[in-house]
Amino acid sequence: MTDTDLALPLLDAGSVTTPCGWRAAAVACGMRYSGRTDLALLVSDAPATAAALFTTNAVQSAHIHYDRAVLARNATAIRALAVNSGSANACTGQAGIDAAATVARTVEEALALPAHSALVMSTGIIGLPLAVGKIVDGIAQAMSQLAVDQGPAAASAIMTTDTRPKYCAVCVPLPDGGEVHIGGMAKGSGMIHPNMATMLGMVTTDATVPPAILATMLRDAADQSFHCISVDGDISTNDTLLALANGQAGQPPIDSRTSPAGQALLAGLTTVCQYLAKEVVRDGEGATRLVTIHVRGAATDAEARQAAMVVARSPLVKTALFAADPNWGRIVCALGYSQVALDPGRLVLSLEGVTVFANGMPVAFDEQTVHRLLDAPTVQVEADLGMGRGTGFAWTCDLSYEYVRINAEYRT
Amino acid sequence: MTDTDLALPLLDAGSVTTPCGWRAAAVACGMRYSGRTDLALLVSDAPATAAALFTTNAVQSAHIHYDRAVLARNATAIRALAVNSGSANACTGQAGIDAAATVARTVEEALALPAHSALVMSTGIIGLPLAVGKIVDGIAQAMSQLAVDQGPAAASAIMTTDTRPKYCAVCVPLPDGGEVHIGGMAKGSGMIHPNMATMLGMVTTDATVPPAILATMLRDAADQSFHCISVDGDISTNDTLLALANGQAGQPPIDSRTSPAGQALLAGLTTVCQYLAKEVVRDGEGATRLVTIHVRGAATDAEARQAAMVVARSPLVKTALFAADPNWGRIVCALGYSQVALDPGRLVLSLEGVTVFANGMPVAFDEQTVHRLLDAPTVQVEADLGMGRGTGFAWTCDLSYEYVRINAEYRT
Repeated sequence: MTDTDLALPLLDAGSVTTPCGWRAAAVACGMRYSGRTDLALLVSDAPATAAALFTTNAVQSAHIHYDRAVLARNATAIRALAVNSGSANACTGQAGIDAAATVARTVEEALALPAHSALVMSTGIIGLPLAVGKIVDGIAQAMSQLAVDQGPAAASAIMTTDTRPKYCAVCVPLPDGGEVHIGGMAKGSGMIHPNMATMLGMVTTDATVPPAILATMLRDAADQSFHCISVDGDISTNDTLLALANGQAGQPPIDSRTSPAGQALLAGLTTVCQYLAKEVVRDGEGATRLVTIHVRGAATDAEARQAAMVVARSPLVKTALFAADPNWGRIVCALGYSQVALDPGRLVLSLEGVTVFANGMPVAFDEQTVHRLLDAPTVQVEADLGMGRGTGFAWTCDLSYEYVRINAEYRT
Repeated sequence: MTDTDLALPLLDAGSVTTPCGWRAAAVACGMRYSGRTDLALLVSDAPATAAALFTTNAVQSAHIHYDRAVLARNATAIRALAVNSGSANACTGQAGIDAAATVARTVEEALALPAHSALVMSTGIIGLPLAVGKIVDGIAQAMSQLAVDQGPAAASAIMTTDTRPKYCAVCVPLPDGGEVHIGGMAKGSGMIHPNMATMLGMVTTDATVPPAILATMLRDAADQSFHCISVDGDISTNDTLLALANGQAGQPPIDSRTSPAGQALLAGLTTVCQYLAKEVVRDGEGATRLVTIHVRGAATDAEARQAAMVVARSPLVKTALFAADPNWGRIVCALGYSQVALDPGRLVLSLEGVTVFANGMPVAFDEQTVHRLLDAPTVQVEADLGMGRGTGFAWTCDLSYEYVRINAEYRT
């Protein structure tokens, strides 16, 4: 998995509004940030099937409680999504869940939609009550701005410590002719070690897909994207990945994950999720490099991913990467405590293609050369465990002074 | 568990040479650091029983392979220990194990001791071959310097990024009269998240204890000390905690962990290990505060400790603590992903005695007051999960710019 081998090419300036029948708006409610938008609205012209993955954290945002209830009764006719930044609406008790319901109801009333057809998401500071009045005013303001070119603006409105918006779209040619589109957006950029999904990710499509098939595909795509990233090892209270399919491309329903059309759609979904997941890591708090940890030769694929994710999480590995220091001992150490089957005598480790450890011993290499290779915006680390055929990968970033600055100054 | 409630008072300037029959020496071999000592030698006048805990990392230092083999055949008559800093002698293959054996044999010959009576330990950079010639010269030099007042000097020689030596001793009055002594030293200060023991810790005593009893006691003491600390979440390849009992106090053998004398010795051992473990955290790389995370009301003691250790490891919690920011949401979030039984509605969280979260909701508090309370060298975080009677704790430090600087500059 390298930076360039996404399965499908990205469309120029593609976003969540690239698929047919999707509009968006972004407005500034003045909830926390000055001089920027903080509320995104996403609307489908037709009812959309929906699938979602939520955080495994035992403490969950009110929006997760609310959306889970809505999706349990209505995963086939979602029309709108409202996303605010500034407050995570987590640890806010029943008042928080009531606030989420008020936001959803306000969207439904403003767009004359049936009950339980709007979803909500929140991101920002934990424990800060949602400024419902400001959001209600913002929704009214957003009505006149809904447009098919506002996808990128929506991606900006959902940012917190992100330094840039993250969005993309692909066109998926179907095996029997015709095509569908998939768009997506996501936000990071700290508290990122998803165990279900990243903090917030949304994928739209104009394909026609029953919710159960969409849910399976979303999980498969997340397993190859958002589940492979770590910025700081903290699993958020708000992690949510949502897919909405409104069928407006007018193509036949995709009712099997394994059919040629199903495989084509899954490849598109995986492409969008991988692009967004890598963007989240690349824009991780304080990040200066995107690092891919490839593990092969593990006993199983699951062990390969586990080993890669443990390396991806190590502060010592991440600080060495910040310095472009070929300090491979810290990587071998992290592999050693990753709790996968490992024999140091069989391990082969390379940094940017240069083998640095094999046969249980260091391999001589030119430090300055490897230092220069590591001093790059993207870095490849490859470990062959020599134990079996399992493969996996993880994307991570380095740990810099800036990470400490951002998180020591975030609130105070 | 606060900073002041160790079970026994520490002796002034106590160290590993405080118990009867122990001598030490510290010399500079010039292996890596200029202008400082880097080899410590510890010698007992009489054969000592030994017990050790080693890292659970699958990649283990050569000294662990060597010592494990020695202890398997001779845990009742250890006479000496040589510890070098500068090279961890890890990832060095068979050559590393041979090097460890050469160092041990050199010590045995210099002191005219039987074979398999010397142990070795190494700490420093992974993958760097041990400079055996320099160590052999250093051992010769150490012979003339062995003395009962060199315990503190030995503690200095084993440091790597530590900013100060860590050593202590206690006197343990025995229930039936008489007394024994326990001394200890340890070094940190990065790659600290022990899962068996800290990087290097050594405890000496003049009590008479069979190795099996000593091993049980050492594990109990570690469970209340070194197993409760985290600096950066990285489990080292070299973690070793060694206890040596030479019987030179002339007291009756302690052959039960549960007898009054056994309980007295265990309290002493726990005191020494807790003092050293806290010193390792207090001197964690870049640390400005020692933070105790107390968890009570967990379903079990094991879950309480797990929850405390997960909070102790969170980079977001640790950066907030660096800023003395009462950002309790990050602590609730970490408890939420700690994989213990948790209901946010029952959780009560307090920072330095001020309740900040209860009944699933924030509790109003004065931010400036709590900020000032948190801006201190020692900080208490208390979480009552309300799920049962389990209690546990963890000691951690904050995550500062200095941690990044130390680890980005360590090798290059």
